[in-house]
Amino acid sequence: MAESKISPLAPEGFPALQPVAGLEMGAMYAGFRKRERPDLLMAVFAEGSVAAGVFTRSKAPAAPVDWSRKVLETSGGKVRALVVNAGNANAFTGERGMKAAVKSAAVAAKTVGCTPEEVLLCSTGVIGVPLNADLFEKPLERIHAGMSGAMWREAAGAIMTTDTYPKGSCKVATLEGRPVVISGIAKGSGMIAPDMATMLGFIFTNAALTQGCLQAILTDATNRSFNSITVDGDTSTNDTCVAVATGVGATYDPIDNPDDPRLQDFRTKFDELMIDLAQQIVRDGEGATKFVTVTIEGAETDEAAHTIGLSVANSPLVKTAIAGEDPNWGRLVAAVGKAGEAADRDSLQIWIGGQHVAHKGAVHPRYSEPEAATHMKGQDIDIRIDVGVGNGNATVWTCDLTYDYIRINADYRS
Amino acid sequence: MAESKISPLAPEGFPALQPVAGLEMGAMYAGFRKRERPDLLMAVFAEGSVAAGVFTRSKAPAAPVDWSRKVLETSGGKVRALVVNAGNANAFTGERGMKAAVKSAAVAAKTVGCTPEEVLLCSTGVIGVPLNADLFEKPLERIHAGMSGAMWREAAGAIMTTDTYPKGSCKVATLEGRPVVISGIAKGSGMIAPDMATMLGFIFTNAALTQGCLQAILTDATNRSFNSITVDGDTSTNDTCVAVATGVGATYDPIDNPDDPRLQDFRTKFDELMIDLAQQIVRDGEGATKFVTVTIEGAETDEAAHTIGLSVANSPLVKTAIAGEDPNWGRLVAAVGKAGEAADRDSLQIWIGGQHVAHKGAVHPRYSEPEAATHMKGQDIDIRIDVGVGNGNATVWTCDLTYDYIRINADYRS
Repeated sequence: MAESKISPLAPEGFPALQPVAGLEMGAMYAGFRKRERPDLLMAVFAEGSVAAGVFTRSKAPAAPVDWSRKVLETSGGKVRALVVNAGNANAFTGERGMKAAVKSAAVAAKTVGCTPEEVLLCSTGVIGVPLNADLFEKPLERIHAGMSGAMWREAAGAIMTTDTYPKGSCKVATLEGRPVVISGIAKGSGMIAPDMATMLGFIFTNAALTQGCLQAILTDATNRSFNSITVDGDTSTNDTCVAVATGVGATYDPIDNPDDPRLQDFRTKFDELMIDLAQQIVRDGEGATKFVTVTIEGAETDEAAHTIGLSVANSPLVKTAIAGEDPNWGRLVAAVGKAGEAADRDSLQIWIGGQHVAHKGAVHPRYSEPEAATHMKGQDIDIRIDVGVGNGNATVWTCDLTYDYIRINADYRS
Repeated sequence: MAESKISPLAPEGFPALQPVAGLEMGAMYAGFRKRERPDLLMAVFAEGSVAAGVFTRSKAPAAPVDWSRKVLETSGGKVRALVVNAGNANAFTGERGMKAAVKSAAVAAKTVGCTPEEVLLCSTGVIGVPLNADLFEKPLERIHAGMSGAMWREAAGAIMTTDTYPKGSCKVATLEGRPVVISGIAKGSGMIAPDMATMLGFIFTNAALTQGCLQAILTDATNRSFNSITVDGDTSTNDTCVAVATGVGATYDPIDNPDDPRLQDFRTKFDELMIDLAQQIVRDGEGATKFVTVTIEGAETDEAAHTIGLSVANSPLVKTAIAGEDPNWGRLVAAVGKAGEAADRDSLQIWIGGQHVAHKGAVHPRYSEPEAATHMKGQDIDIRIDVGVGNGNATVWTCDLTYDYIRINADYRS
C-alpha cells in the first residue's frame, strides 16, 4: 500500500497530552507490518488500576477481543498492561489465533511482572493471516526498558493502519478539588460505523474509580461519540475501546456511583475527549474531503433520532452528493424515509448550513440553491433535519464518499 | 447529466416480449425530462383486469405511491390504466404533489374512458421539484390514439432514468392446458436496495386471477427477486412493483387460491421472470463492472440467511475489494460478523468461485490465492458462505462499487 497523504481534514498537529500518574508507555517496530514503522505499543499501569471496555458486536470477533473481554470479566477489572499490535488483526485465524493471543499475554506478563490475566490485548490490521507471537518478546523487553509517561505521539502512531495522522486528546478535570488528567489516543479511518467498527480507543486517567463506575461512564460516552460516527457503515472484527483508571495520587476512596455529583466535571470532560477522538477518526475517513455534522430533531425518541441520523450519514447517495458539493436535499428526504423510524413527510424540515431548505413537505419558498451550494463548497457541512413527530434528538458525524475511498479500499491488500 | 455508456454487464439486446391479451401501450416524450427522449408511458387494460402492488417502505413516500396504494385498496384491484412518467419523482412536493397526481389521474381517466380511481400512477426521477400536471393531457391523447400490444421496448425505454439499457423479460406458462403470457418491464440502476429501492417493475399477464391471489403471488416473488438485490443499500421514495392480470381469453373462473395446483407452472415462470428483471437491474448498477451472486447457507433461518447475504452484498469494503479484483475473504468474515445474525466463527466456511477458501475459523490449507484472483478477474463473481449454525439459505445479487458509482452520483443533478 502506498503511503497516503495526510487527510485534508486533519487537525493542525498532534495535541499536547499530559502524563497520567501511574501510567508508562513505549512503542517500537516489531515486524507485524511489512514496512518499518512502529507497530507495537505497550502501556503499563500501576498496581490497583482498573479497566473497562466496549467491544465490537461482531459475531466473528478476533481472538484478542475474546481474550480482553475475558480479562475484564474475570479479573474484577484489575489490569497491569495493555499490548497493541498493528498490521495483523489476528482475526479469523482459527485455534492458532487464540494460541498466539495467549502467548503474547504470557510474554507481556513476564516482562511486566504480573499475571497474563492482567494483560489486555488488541490487534488491528489484515484479517485471516496468522499472527506470529514470537515477534512480541524482544520488542516488549526493549519497550519495557525505555518506557516513559510522555510518549503519546509514539503510542498513537504505533496503532495506526490506514490512518493518515495520529489521534490524541487531553482534558484536565477537577475532582475532589484537585486536577485529574484524562489522556486518550485512538485509531481508525475506514470501516468506521456504528457499534464501534475498526477503531481502537484508549482512554487513561488517574481518577480513582471502581470498575463498575468506569464501565458505566465509558459505555455512556461511547454512545454519544464512537457509536455516533460512521465512515462507510462497515464494522470490524476487532473494535475495542478501553478505559483505564489508575487512581494514583487520589486522596479519596474509588468512586463507585457514576452519578456521584463529584464526577460532574470529570464526566463532562470525559465525554468531550471521546467526542474529540471520534471526530478525529471521521476527519481521517478514507478519502474524506468534508466533515459532516448531521443533527436530527423532532424524532419520537433519542434512539429514533440516532437511527435516522445514521441512515442519513450512511447513505451513499447523500455522501456522494456532498462529495459533489450538491445541496441535494431530495436524497436527505429519501434517507430519512428509509430509516424506518416515524417521520412526518408533511412537517419535515431541513436546514443546510443554517439555511431553511424545506418545510411543510416541500421546498421552502425562500430557499436559495446558490447559497446552499456555497455552503457545500466549504469543508464543514452542517445538515439539520426536524422530522416533526416528537422531541428526540441526536447528532452524528460522517464524511463524504469520494473516488479516493474506492482507490484506498480496492488496493488495500495489493 | 451526460449520456452514460451502456453497462458492460448488459444483456446482448432487449428480449422479444410477447403481447398480453387485453393490454395495449404506448410511450412518447412529454417534457418531464430536459432531454428529448420518451418519458411518458401509458398502458391500458381490458375491463375486468385486476392489479396488485408492492410499494416502498419509505416513511416519506411520493404522492403517486400514496395514490396507487389507495387505488388498490379501494377499487377491489380493478384497474384500467397505468401512467408512468420519468424525469420527475413528484416526491416531497407537498400538497402540490398530490394535486398533480390527482390531475394526471383525471386526465388519463378522461382519455381512456374510466374513473380516476381505476388509474395507477408512478413517477421516477428528481425529488423535490414540482410536477407540471399540464404536461400529461396532449401526450396521453396521442399515446391513446396510437397504442399497440407490442411496444415493449418503447415502454421499457420511457421509464428509464440513470438506466443504461431498457429491461424486459417474457415467459409463457401453461395454465388449464393453455398458454398464458407473462411479460414484464422494469427500471432501476442506482438507489437499489432491499425493500424495493428506486425501482419500478410492471408485470402483465392474461391469466385470470383474483386480486388477492395476484397480490400473494407478487409479494412472494418480490421477496426472492427485487428484495434480494442491492446496488448501494439506498431506498427511494417511489419504488413500486405492479402486476396486472387481464384474464382475457380465460376459459376458467379467476383463480383465488395462490396455492392452487393449477398455478404451479405459472408461479415458477412468474418467479423466474421477476428474478430475471431483478438481475437486469443489478447488471445496470451504477458504475458496475461485476455481477456478484452471494449465497448464504447454514443460517438459523432463511430470513437470517437473507439478512447476512445483504450485509455482505451491501458492505462497501466487500464491494470495493471486488472492484479491485481482490479475493479479500477477510472482509467477507467481517460482513458476516456485523450482520447481527447467529454465525459460528469456528465452523464458518467460504467458497470463492467454487474454491474452498476458509473452514474451521481459518484459511483452508489448500486455498490458492492466485486461483481465487483469477476468478475475481471475471465478470461473474460467485461467493458462497456457510455460517455453520442451521439450515437457512438465501441468495442475493449485487455488483461492485467503483469510481464510476461516485462519478454518476456526485454529478447527477449538475
